[in-house]
Amino acid sequence: MSIITLTTDFGLNDWFVGTMKGVILRIHPHAAIVDLTHGIPSGDIRAGAFALAAGYRYFPRGTIHVAVVDPGVGGPRAGIVVQTAEYFFVGPDNGVLSLALRREKVKTIRRLENARCFLQPVSNTFHGRDLFAPVAAHLSRGLRCPRLGPVFKDHVRLSWPQCAVPPGALRGEVICLDRFGNAITNIENEHVSPADAVGMFVRGQAFVPVKSFYQAVPKGKPVAVPGSSGFLEIAVNGGNAARRLKLKIGTAVLVKRRRG
Amino acid sequence: MSIITLTTDFGLNDWFVGTMKGVILRIHPHAAIVDLTHGIPSGDIRAGAFALAAGYRYFPRGTIHVAVVDPGVGGPRAGIVVQTAEYFFVGPDNGVLSLALRREKVKTIRRLENARCFLQPVSNTFHGRDLFAPVAAHLSRGLRCPRLGPVFKDHVRLSWPQCAVPPGALRGEVICLDRFGNAITNIENEHVSPADAVGMFVRGQAFVPVKSFYQAVPKGKPVAVPGSSGFLEIAVNGGNAARRLKLKIGTAVLVKRRRG
Amino acid sequence: MSIITLTTDFGLNDWFVGTMKGVILRIHPHAAIVDLTHGIPSGDIRAGAFALAAGYRYFPRGTIHVAVVDPGVGGPRAGIVVQTAEYFFVGPDNGVLSLALRREKVKTIRRLENARCFLQPVSNTFHGRDLFAPVAAHLSRGLRCPRLGPVFKDHVRLSWPQCAVPPGALRGEVICLDRFGNAITNIENEHVSPADAVGMFVRGQAFVPVKSFYQAVPKGKPVAVPGSSGFLEIAVNGGNAARRLKLKIGTAVLVKRRRG
Repeated sequence: MSIITLTTDFGLNDWFVGTMKGVILRIHPHAAIVDLTHGIPSGDIRAGAFALAAGYRYFPRGTIHVAVVDPGVGGPRAGIVVQTAEYFFVGPDNGVLSLALRREKVKTIRRLENARCFLQPVSNTFHGRDLFAPVAAHLSRGLRCPRLGPVFKDHVRLSWPQCAVPPGALRGEVICLDRFGNAITNIENEHVSPADAVGMFVRGQAFVPVKSFYQAVPKGKPVAVPGSSGFLEIAVNGGNAARRLKLKIGTAVLVKRRRG
Repeated sequence: MSIITLTTDFGLNDWFVGTMKGVILRIHPHAAIVDLTHGIPSGDIRAGAFALAAGYRYFPRGTIHVAVVDPGVGGPRAGIVVQTAEYFFVGPDNGVLSLALRREKVKTIRRLENARCFLQPVSNTFHGRDLFAPVAAHLSRGLRCPRLGPVFKDHVRLSWPQCAVPPGALRGEVICLDRFGNAITNIENEHVSPADAVGMFVRGQAFVPVKSFYQAVPKGKPVAVPGSSGFLEIAVNGGNAARRLKLKIGTAVLVKRRRG
Repeated sequence: MSIITLTTDFGLNDWFVGTMKGVILRIHPHAAIVDLTHGIPSGDIRAGAFALAAGYRYFPRGTIHVAVVDPGVGGPRAGIVVQTAEYFFVGPDNGVLSLALRREKVKTIRRLENARCFLQPVSNTFHGRDLFAPVAAHLSRGLRCPRLGPVFKDHVRLSWPQCAVPPGALRGEVICLDRFGNAITNIENEHVSPADAVGMFVRGQAFVPVKSFYQAVPKGKPVAVPGSSGFLEIAVNGGNAARRLKLKIGTAVLVKRRRG
């Protein structure tokens, strides 16, 4: 069974996502469609890229990942399909696929140009329904990438905060706030072990201890833990860290290590 | 595989939608259930009717569309199943099905009366679970409509704003606001071509150019485009038109054409 | 086909739920996954327990119900699987399963300890993905409970408001507010028949008539009806009872009966 995942900023209050599923099922009635999330803030390509990167690799080999955060729909940006060693990725070439692709072995990129694979007539405002959903459905039925369009040299990459590594410290920033108010940073878990870290400074001030799990601090206290997405995250045990520590996307953090 | 779509105002925070799916799967374990949307504002029959009308026709022939926006549940309104040339529609007879049915060739309407097709005991407050879900499940297994109840003469039709056509202009109104703040009007795309239109006046004042796609105007500027639901919609390139232009359901619009 | 239901407080705006589904499908590509709800307020074990209890029994025999409202993740609380006469239940042992289990015939409880059934490495912050999803997937493929871990003597039970029964009256409280603003009480339908009840007093003051359905009172008026979850609920015909009557979790109610 072919799995198609959907990551969009369409929300669930309109008929957009359901419509994409209808289009897929008309082409491939046995496709298994899984929502990764449709709650990406409108037009926030970086948030979409992060959600896709955080979730895609838990799916079976061969899964087709569709990501549509597409404020440039109808304009000149290309639509692409990217085949990697393990997966397919389908979406607009605006960077929304790029964070996931950083970790994958890219085999080929094609520009979506074969109009026979699209839903006709193609609108200028809803390529999720008219381009990306039908392309994913055709792929899930076994269509090979070359039939979708010509080779595409490169794809748009988001610039992404890099975690700087001064001696004895790691400098990073908040890149995502989740529903629980946890703030995910760009400092990868593998660079910090709780045993090794003196602690984290938020905005150069607030001190947050680095521990292995939320309950290692008393209820209501902040803590930094190696998070499930692979990055250090700031939480409050039983509370909401984003609200409590006024954390935002871009808030600077610094992890102090015992030995440089 | 039989597909059942669900359109409701139940939201996703309670157990209502999940429960409907359980009821369906108990009757037909292989039914494929697709959410069209559950985000219809509570009791807003018109919004439900519009979402169903905007999305239903992208599904495969034979799909069973269930729509439950049902403020009159437990009262005298009938439950009905409508068979059209392409689909089945199941829901309360309060108009929620009527916009979709306007475009379909209706073959037969039946009033749901066969209690053996319902979940017993039938509550007075949740016919989505007790009537409409089991009826859809039985249909998806091949049950024929006559077994569900007697022929029903007619169904409730929503009155719907008609787009008036004065010479040289089209008079309409906003009928739906989507998640992106785009305002969908009741002026059908086929009546307006961007080449032909001088522009749109909102509330007789604000002038909005009519273009083919969002990016045809500078970022932050309003634009009217032929929308993906088949109606002219008002957007702001990279912004939120509803907020920016204070658009509401019912806001009057007028499209001025070059030639009457 | 094995059905797995998911009840969590993960919301739908992040990638958490989608990721759990990926993990399940990697282990069992043909599992049918149904969302009961992911809208439980963060960390609200009682709300999760109520949603599960309200919905689980509408699913087919053999369904595997996963409930993850888990503020103690990473701490000492156990993960358990409970086999009952009809279903499996998987989740943290913090009471979230306990309301559903009150109605079920429990056959065996096991503590999840077999690391070979988990997603490795197991994080300290996301057992929904790393423990409960893979365990459910293995169960859906036919894995037997003894292979998951040792017998677990007992499980955490939530204390739950009991409906007191003074002569001629039933004393209870609000235990859940749904999306429509209906307030579900802990007074079971079978203890009250509309014919028998004089009416309900909210907070010892506001009088609400007990009727069989919402429309038995004029539009805009409050009414108590036997609800679809099995409990008496307070509604406003065409309105929002929680807002109108300022109802909260814990608001006291008293049903006066004609005969004690």
